[in-house]
Amino acid sequence: VSAGKDVYGDRSSDAPPQPFFRSRWVPAPAHVRELGLDSGLPGGFRAAGVTCGIKPSGNPDLALLVCDAENPVSAARFTATAVPAAPVLLSKERCRLDGLRAILANSGCANAATGKRGLEDAAKTQGAAAAALGLDPSAIAVASTGGISDYLPVDSIVKGILTAHKQLRREGDADLQRAIQTTDAFEKRASLEVQLPSGPVRLSAQCKGAGMISPRFATMFCFVQTDAALTPETADLLFGVCVKRSFDRASVDGQLSTNDTAILMSSGSSGVSIAPESEDELRFGEALDALLRQLAIMMVADGEGAARIARVVVRGGDLDGAEAAARAVANSPLVKAALHSGDPNWGRIVQSVGGALGGRPGFAAPLAVDLTLEGIHVCSAGAAIAYDEDALASALQAKEVEYEIELGGGGSIHAETEVFFSDLSHEYVSFNADYHT
Amino acid sequence: VSAGKDVYGDRSSDAPPQPFFRSRWVPAPAHVRELGLDSGLPGGFRAAGVTCGIKPSGNPDLALLVCDAENPVSAARFTATAVPAAPVLLSKERCRLDGLRAILANSGCANAATGKRGLEDAAKTQGAAAAALGLDPSAIAVASTGGISDYLPVDSIVKGILTAHKQLRREGDADLQRAIQTTDAFEKRASLEVQLPSGPVRLSAQCKGAGMISPRFATMFCFVQTDAALTPETADLLFGVCVKRSFDRASVDGQLSTNDTAILMSSGSSGVSIAPESEDELRFGEALDALLRQLAIMMVADGEGAARIARVVVRGGDLDGAEAAARAVANSPLVKAALHSGDPNWGRIVQSVGGALGGRPGFAAPLAVDLTLEGIHVCSAGAAIAYDEDALASALQAKEVEYEIELGGGGSIHAETEVFFSDLSHEYVSFNADYHT
Repeated sequence: VSAGKDVYGDRSSDAPPQPFFRSRWVPAPAHVRELGLDSGLPGGFRAAGVTCGIKPSGNPDLALLVCDAENPVSAARFTATAVPAAPVLLSKERCRLDGLRAILANSGCANAATGKRGLEDAAKTQGAAAAALGLDPSAIAVASTGGISDYLPVDSIVKGILTAHKQLRREGDADLQRAIQTTDAFEKRASLEVQLPSGPVRLSAQCKGAGMISPRFATMFCFVQTDAALTPETADLLFGVCVKRSFDRASVDGQLSTNDTAILMSSGSSGVSIAPESEDELRFGEALDALLRQLAIMMVADGEGAARIARVVVRGGDLDGAEAAARAVANSPLVKAALHSGDPNWGRIVQSVGGALGGRPGFAAPLAVDLTLEGIHVCSAGAAIAYDEDALASALQAKEVEYEIELGGGGSIHAETEVFFSDLSHEYVSFNADYHT
Repeated sequence: VSAGKDVYGDRSSDAPPQPFFRSRWVPAPAHVRELGLDSGLPGGFRAAGVTCGIKPSGNPDLALLVCDAENPVSAARFTATAVPAAPVLLSKERCRLDGLRAILANSGCANAATGKRGLEDAAKTQGAAAAALGLDPSAIAVASTGGISDYLPVDSIVKGILTAHKQLRREGDADLQRAIQTTDAFEKRASLEVQLPSGPVRLSAQCKGAGMISPRFATMFCFVQTDAALTPETADLLFGVCVKRSFDRASVDGQLSTNDTAILMSSGSSGVSIAPESEDELRFGEALDALLRQLAIMMVADGEGAARIARVVVRGGDLDGAEAAARAVANSPLVKAALHSGDPNWGRIVQSVGGALGGRPGFAAPLAVDLTLEGIHVCSAGAAIAYDEDALASALQAKEVEYEIELGGGGSIHAETEVFFSDLSHEYVSFNADYHT
């Protein structure tokens, strides 16, 4: 994939800017206004991104984000892997995750599969950031992304922290963004104004992720800031729900990373407080939900080499079965290859559903599957039906394609789930096979 | 992939023949002798393969296999999918699977997702074969492979059955083989002589499969014949165990087909009877096991575009966990891309194990995974250790690569499982994305 291109078209710096909310699946909420990407962070936040020498390319690789508020509130979510990286272990075990004051993030090295030394290295960099910022180490989350099994270059990072500290500024979010990217072809960043009944608040986010993007929330960083005042409980509740509806529903390649980290921080500097179960909370939640869903779809659209993305919606059966079917479709290399070429080979979708549900209680064979692609009904109760083949072929050329699956059969429980996923391209193979690490 | 090539080298017709047992993972049993591929079927069997016009290419697409014994014995296994194709449903529901006298198989059309009409079409072709052979329809299994959602061209097949019937002969196995292949790059066929304590018997097989090859036994046909006399119980027991240890452990792309069919038929014409729990049964079972394992590995080696194949062995934990970890490694596009290029990027293997076991009871994070590649220990208790990087890079250039994973942790149960799998290549994407069906 060419740098600066995504499935929506030209994203290079000299192309006209696209709106942030550009997926058909995420309508921009009426009370949310997109701000320019040079409008800086919400009040109370400063950021920096520098080159400290982790990446051989000399690209930026170390980021610092600080909240200057007296009593910041935060919420965090991490990878569900059984082999979490050292920074994930350290952040989960040693940090006050509901009151974080800073994030230290690096790209170019995941500090994963590094054992005791990896934990010690992560703690050293956390300590250096704490000393520079005059904070307790437990207030600083650490996050790393890059190659697995390499050790952190601690000395370089400590020097980089001093440089980054001097460069912290309201407008530092673009630098932070560049410093957390790895194989990302374009930036995933937003700056929004949200009109709440109690007044306007700001919401911004910086996000990275292109490969090793998976079920159960993607290989990624997402850092979100707001100047709204949230209680720890509200922050955790809203962020948890929105992560489940966004990154948790995205898959590039079904691969769960060792390092996924998503953190929401609230400075409260707008003076607008979000009371539990208020109209403010509802509206703020809608904005956060749209923000994270659009970012998740952008990660899928940046899936290494993606030319086309899809949303699969599965209805019927119990939730475990619907989930298994949706994941099976989203992670099927045959379905993904057909998506890539716009091939109306829908038998592969039925095959992947059957493979996932074979032998599962409540889904006796033959399953009465219904399949609709871009609104065109092609399979009813498990059997092909007549449809307009030209219309289907044409509809599958879209950049965003929708599959709807009804599992059929009896039972009173009717689950519904969705997964966003990318295609399987030559570029994905090139990214992941044609170079040596 | 070039026709006639596989991971083991040149397979074109003018290349010197390779031994059938050519994988390091399947030593040829001492009591088994490979016969020439022109030696014909065991006594009591005849076969034919013809072109009846299903495939637009004009390649052979219809096969007939007949056992002329008075009381043949058979055993069969089918796909575990929730959306089985019509021929699978018909064979399972209408045939005497322990006493089959014939198999009617076609390529070029899977007769899957075809509903009631598909079942009726399959029954018509079964009826036509029964009439031609003078047999009851319940003695004839039907098997189809090819595109999903197309209807069988019944008239062409009925005509083809008459042609095939006239061509039935002992030496028809090569024709049968050609008529069941689809994207296979080379034939998967064997003719063996097995020395049993009670005397020599013959064992032959014809097998197809290259893509949509999956867990829980692969997208494939495998037809096995022997002139040994087996009881129905022994045939079912031995065949069931050997299928579990072979096709059930093979994965090209994690995709479970709608049409998998494996059938063992015994004519008894050698006069050598296999008594239950006898030394004959043990030796016959060893030969059948080696035959099916080598065929399964050949299918993986023919995985659309495969340049390299691997065996992952997982030890420790409970069987479900070990199985999940082995499948996750075998089906990870990141692991498969690294396998393809011989990249010593073993962090991807650890990542895929962690992704599979995250949140699973008994596998608390961080998991103390050990990883050994081609005998080189690279990761101990979840952390990288020092090893000879040049030796590893060189070892990973082999055509067959072995990964050994110890899950570590406590617990007294120590499962062990294995999966054979192929790499992810540009050719796989080309096969499955660059053409339109």
